[in-house]
Amino acid sequence: MNAPLRTIQAGRDGARVTILDQSRLPHDVVTLDLTTVEEVAEAIGAMRVRGAPLIGVTAAWGVALALRHDPSDAGLARAAEVLIRQRPTAVNLRWAVERVAAAVRGLSAADRADAAWVEAASIMAEDESGNERIAEHGLPLIQEIARRKHDGDAVQVLTHCNAGWLATTAWGTATAPIYLAHQQGIPVHVWVDETRPRNQGAALTAWELARAGVPHTVIVDNAGGHLMQRDRVDLCLVGADRVAANGDVVNKIGTYLKALAARDGGIPFHVAMPTSTIDLAAIDGMMIPIEERDPDEVLGVTGYADGVPVRVALTAPATRAANPGFDVTPARLVTSLITERGCIAPTPAAIAALMEHDIR
Amino acid sequence: MNAPLRTIQAGRDGARVTILDQSRLPHDVVTLDLTTVEEVAEAIGAMRVRGAPLIGVTAAWGVALALRHDPSDAGLARAAEVLIRQRPTAVNLRWAVERVAAAVRGLSAADRADAAWVEAASIMAEDESGNERIAEHGLPLIQEIARRKHDGDAVQVLTHCNAGWLATTAWGTATAPIYLAHQQGIPVHVWVDETRPRNQGAALTAWELARAGVPHTVIVDNAGGHLMQRDRVDLCLVGADRVAANGDVVNKIGTYLKALAARDGGIPFHVAMPTSTIDLAAIDGMMIPIEERDPDEVLGVTGYADGVPVRVALTAPATRAANPGFDVTPARLVTSLITERGCIAPTPAAIAALMEHDIR
Repeated sequence: MNAPLRTIQAGRDGARVTILDQSRLPHDVVTLDLTTVEEVAEAIGAMRVRGAPLIGVTAAWGVALALRHDPSDAGLARAAEVLIRQRPTAVNLRWAVERVAAAVRGLSAADRADAAWVEAASIMAEDESGNERIAEHGLPLIQEIARRKHDGDAVQVLTHCNAGWLATTAWGTATAPIYLAHQQGIPVHVWVDETRPRNQGAALTAWELARAGVPHTVIVDNAGGHLMQRDRVDLCLVGADRVAANGDVVNKIGTYLKALAARDGGIPFHVAMPTSTIDLAAIDGMMIPIEERDPDEVLGVTGYADGVPVRVALTAPATRAANPGFDVTPARLVTSLITERGCIAPTPAAIAALMEHDIR
Repeated sequence: MNAPLRTIQAGRDGARVTILDQSRLPHDVVTLDLTTVEEVAEAIGAMRVRGAPLIGVTAAWGVALALRHDPSDAGLARAAEVLIRQRPTAVNLRWAVERVAAAVRGLSAADRADAAWVEAASIMAEDESGNERIAEHGLPLIQEIARRKHDGDAVQVLTHCNAGWLATTAWGTATAPIYLAHQQGIPVHVWVDETRPRNQGAALTAWELARAGVPHTVIVDNAGGHLMQRDRVDLCLVGADRVAANGDVVNKIGTYLKALAARDGGIPFHVAMPTSTIDLAAIDGMMIPIEERDPDEVLGVTGYADGVPVRVALTAPATRAANPGFDVTPARLVTSLITERGCIAPTPAAIAALMEHDIR
């Protein structure tokens, strides 16, 4: 490809978006054109695009594509419904769909598709610039640790799942401060949880860190506690799929376990996400629905053998599995929330204050 | 096979032991004859036999086989060395090798092989009877929870890795109370951590629970915290590779994370193991060596596709991984140690008292 690699790009014809098919990474770098809301919904449901912010951006384009075909109120409602039902946990999906819908609802049918296209483009541009702000607000947390290091020792960051540029329009959320620190010459090394069952850490985070030249080491999800116990982690930095009004963080399954180990070891645990991830309607994390995914993701795994993707079974036939996709990290275990508007404590008051001056 | 399936059996000719090759489970049930100490060492190193108690039993037979070929002091020392270096963390390996060596050291060369054979048989028999005692001592912990359940709801146990009969001569350690409860008609359901990187939970624990008819569900290692948070786990029950004099527990990597979640959720966390797993020379868990295993175990996984074993890569080529095999669960997170001599608190005083009346 000649264009720089992006997770999603709008076609100049206004009739398609092009996504990087993340289900094929890290082995195949393949893009896909999406021209209908059904194709967009499939890409979200099959996790060809994933990551709360990117799901939101992609869904916004999905509404815009839907309105090209059917700009009626019924068409708008249908598009919103098919998109929102793909992933129940990430709130950015609903947020983005509702934002585009609100932008076009007062318009005539003839004007809706173009207006939706403009609104989706705004959401995408804001995601990128917001993540640049997250990088800037998070950078001091890394700089502070770097100052205490000797002889150019790297700052040791542990991350879970993929909250990288692949999960967003650009920069990523959890990775944004890491990339900025790396650009500024601060030595950083990232411990990458493989993140079973779908291995977004091993397949995506490791891949994008390698492309950016950021040193990193993949570990199984079981290993992070041991590393923290042995003082081999300076800070944890993860993303979020939804943050409740009280600061509870819903993120990829297993995040809670790492937050417990960080607390036990006195290690800071930061969560980076755009304010669109905050759901003020959720009083606490325990009321947020947790997506239960296909047990087959647990019973087997897809990797590469001899250059082709192969799914292998990990258990005897007829074995049952459960597959909750997310867990709740209680606010008491979170050191700070790093947002595009600044770094705050995960408290109801700080979150309310942050959301009050909603300047959009 | 006509004989009941056992992890290890002594040949009647006194010249071989037969093991179940656990590296082929759950897909192929295959036994292997071992006739030399080198073959025994290979079986331990390649994890064809694994689990702290079974490693000890197998190593004892290894010494006996070695003495058939070379009963000299040099031969004994060489056998001990080649066996002990296979796995640095499980203390039962060293314990069993030293016990057989002590039993033969005062004997003439001509008598050593037979005496070693008898001693290995004793260690094996004691492992089985000890695990029966563990079952009896652990049973009340399950019965007590069962009494509080309504309408025959199952007692929900979470376990990590495989501390089942496959890890021992029979019964298992963590599974022993579960099997006894099941035999007595107490409804039990086991959440089985898959236990990356080698998936002993998904491949071994799930397989042996299925054979015994114990209901169970496989989960990724990330999921246990979520289940505990949602009150879907009544107790955690795991094994150990070494227990320090202060009650710290060294067990399969990831155990510590589950103990943290149990503590956070007010859920009992029990460790079942024979007293041969206790290392009084280790003042605390942090001084016990943690085996660093091959990064390839993290970078890929072996499963089955179309009936044959296939290794698939999970990361891009050239990705680095770290692979610590064990972690330390501090004694403060452990509710009790269930041993063949009884159930004790994980305190220096209780452990010293337990080990004092060492009647062997």
